[in-house]
Amino acid sequence: MKKLREFLDPPKVLVLGFLTIILIGTFLLTLPYATINGDGLSFLNALFTATSAACVNGLVVVDTGSTFSTFGILVILSLIQIGGLGFMTFATFFAVLLGKRISLKERLVLRESMNSSSIEGIVKLSKRIIFFTVLIEIIGAIILSFRFAADIPTGKAIFFGIFHSISNFNNAGFDLTGEFKSLTHYVDDSIMTLTVCALITLGGIGFIVLNELYEYRITRRVSLHTKVVLATSFVLTFGGTILILLLEFGNPKTLQTLSHDGKLLAALFQSVAPRSAGSSTLNMADLTQSSLFLIMFLMFIGASPGSAGGGIKTTTFATLLGAVWSQIKGKEDVVFFRQCIPFNTIYKALTVTVSGLFLAVVLTMLLTITENNQDFLMILFEAVSASSNVGLSMGLTPDLSPIGRILVIIAMFAGRVGPLTIAYAIATKQEANTFRYPKGKMMIG
Amino acid sequence: MKKLREFLDPPKVLVLGFLTIILIGTFLLTLPYATINGDGLSFLNALFTATSAACVNGLVVVDTGSTFSTFGILVILSLIQIGGLGFMTFATFFAVLLGKRISLKERLVLRESMNSSSIEGIVKLSKRIIFFTVLIEIIGAIILSFRFAADIPTGKAIFFGIFHSISNFNNAGFDLTGEFKSLTHYVDDSIMTLTVCALITLGGIGFIVLNELYEYRITRRVSLHTKVVLATSFVLTFGGTILILLLEFGNPKTLQTLSHDGKLLAALFQSVAPRSAGSSTLNMADLTQSSLFLIMFLMFIGASPGSAGGGIKTTTFATLLGAVWSQIKGKEDVVFFRQCIPFNTIYKALTVTVSGLFLAVVLTMLLTITENNQDFLMILFEAVSASSNVGLSMGLTPDLSPIGRILVIIAMFAGRVGPLTIAYAIATKQEANTFRYPKGKMMIG
Ligand SMILES: [K+]
Ligand SMILES: [K+]
Repeated sequence: MKKLREFLDPPKVLVLGFLTIILIGTFLLTLPYATINGDGLSFLNALFTATSAACVNGLVVVDTGSTFSTFGILVILSLIQIGGLGFMTFATFFAVLLGKRISLKERLVLRESMNSSSIEGIVKLSKRIIFFTVLIEIIGAIILSFRFAADIPTGKAIFFGIFHSISNFNNAGFDLTGEFKSLTHYVDDSIMTLTVCALITLGGIGFIVLNELYEYRITRRVSLHTKVVLATSFVLTFGGTILILLLEFGNPKTLQTLSHDGKLLAALFQSVAPRSAGSSTLNMADLTQSSLFLIMFLMFIGASPGSAGGGIKTTTFATLLGAVWSQIKGKEDVVFFRQCIPFNTIYKALTVTVSGLFLAVVLTMLLTITENNQDFLMILFEAVSASSNVGLSMGLTPDLSPIGRILVIIAMFAGRVGPLTIAYAIATKQEANTFRYPKGKMMIG
Repeated sequence: MKKLREFLDPPKVLVLGFLTIILIGTFLLTLPYATINGDGLSFLNALFTATSAACVNGLVVVDTGSTFSTFGILVILSLIQIGGLGFMTFATFFAVLLGKRISLKERLVLRESMNSSSIEGIVKLSKRIIFFTVLIEIIGAIILSFRFAADIPTGKAIFFGIFHSISNFNNAGFDLTGEFKSLTHYVDDSIMTLTVCALITLGGIGFIVLNELYEYRITRRVSLHTKVVLATSFVLTFGGTILILLLEFGNPKTLQTLSHDGKLLAALFQSVAPRSAGSSTLNMADLTQSSLFLIMFLMFIGASPGSAGGGIKTTTFATLLGAVWSQIKGKEDVVFFRQCIPFNTIYKALTVTVSGLFLAVVLTMLLTITENNQDFLMILFEAVSASSNVGLSMGLTPDLSPIGRILVIIAMFAGRVGPLTIAYAIATKQEANTFRYPKGKMMIG
């Protein structure tokens, strides 16, 4: 019994689960009929593509639309759906149901919305997550299919609609439009922009929030978690839109030539997509350095907890800012919406942020060595994108050296399973020591 | 009485003190006889130079050695000495003597070494700091004068020896060698390298540590603070040396052409100087992107508390790593040398780091706008260097636009007085609230 429980240790299930679907995906993508040319992918490129898809990252070494056969595309779509749904479920479980030590506190978040916290709770939770996923993906697919049908044959349009709905709701950022162009063809298209932005936002906001909003008509209340997620997401989305609008307004390669509405739509898309879907309606390499730096910042923050999105998460960012603000103002507590944030939460925010910085810094460092003739900004952008599960690129990915590809594969995997594994370690392993060392004094700053 | 106390509020004294010496310095450097050409500096360049000198930063828009008259150089040297000594004293006071709330705990660090914590303590402390400063600067000046005398006339050599000893002990990074070349002429010179590295290290390690080591023969013990500073500095210095050695070994523009000893000396210098003196024996722009990224990392960490150096400080970095490590291992406490680090200290480390990141990120963002045709790596390097009080540059400083110069001036000032002002706010303003909000639950990561 103990052996079984050890075997089903959640981080192990997470890591082994992802490894398994990545390896199956890699195998399938090397098959001759996975690609249009009938050769299949090389092992390294297949591993890269499968890892990117299963981790819903979105970085690609080969162009998805022009390389893969329908079979290959279906393999990628399955990896995205399994990876995205699996991770979203895991992330919600980890944060809500699991964890001996925090469960007493944090489980309450779930209980508020699910009225349960046992095995039935898990089953009910999974069903609910699948329900939301399928519902939103179907609505997205219908709208996108109609939009694509204006440009391409109906059958292909439906296929495109389904693919891009699933890809964006899961924050995967894969596309079928060809030539690594993502959605640049639709830069000033309001239906495409608003639908995809809605899919990305709903997919990145986290299940807890979706569920609370869904049940609001009954419960008539939202938790602190939901308030902080909504407030932070709002500020980042619209703050990002305004800044990109200002920074790109006079850029002839990006916004300058667009209409007023087109400018707004393009700025909105480029603000939403870095957190952390990885689609784009502008060519990243055409943006100003200022916008690219801003986008890196947005990528690093990423989506919200309990979603398929990446980054350190909105609540982490809000907690950091709150902690600094209260320290500077000489307040003892970090207070959001008249509730005080416990030390444990601040401590976790610190750990998540430093780990995230560490992964991005180490990957940047290693890529500057392996890709030593590439531009630093391109490398930094790629590293932040890979480790934060975003999938935006200034165009470096297809040019990566073999060792660079392996490094990015490892970073995509670590950026996906690492944070949850750390969260689990924090949640479960902490024990009150019977023996404690005396407190030491040290100067800081 | 209360008005006088308010007027002497330490952050105000710090900010007004620095502003005053910067403005006096600016005035003196605009005088015709401050420069060799008899024109004096323009107001903006004088303000830049005076700010850089008083804040012991080291970024320069005009080459010090070939622009200024002896009078101008003496003005700069005075600004460095007043700024460096003043800040070191303030930083030690802030961390040790002042602060109602932390004083009970942290004052002990001082009491251990000074056996006092009252007004006499302050006087004794100031005397002791001046004693260390003068002693080390004289020894440094003598060694450097002898070294310079091998190349240049004796009188000039003594002047050079005094200037470079004061500049490097105060982590100011100004030099008189001409053409923005810093100490590149001495790249494989062991006397120059080792003397300057020793000056930088002793100036950056902080007064508390110097004093404890000085009194070790009597006390036979060192505090936790000193242990952590020494351990972290050791790891960063030699880790940095090894990494730079590896990264530059085959670079024909830097280490490749040097002898074995020369390689070691150059790697050591480029590892020590970013924390945070800002001298260099290699042209920064010639280094590999990997080394430059590593140097940015070292610049951001910087020196130790209670010194004239900048950055988030060694103890802050150690605390962050310790906090993450203990979280991942599921330990409740952060333990260094069998002493547990209080939550308050971890919280301060978080605040200092996030504030430091904020300053560097905002400056980078603004400089990408004002210097939009410059290379991103150069801009990022400049921003980290300016805000961490380092003074290393890939060569951007003299090419900065007027607005860019103003931004860097503000960042140098903020990077100097900001951290201490924040530290003071943390130390004094915190009050136990009689009313506290209830604890809220939130998911992180
Ligand atoms: K993504
Ligand atoms: K400096």
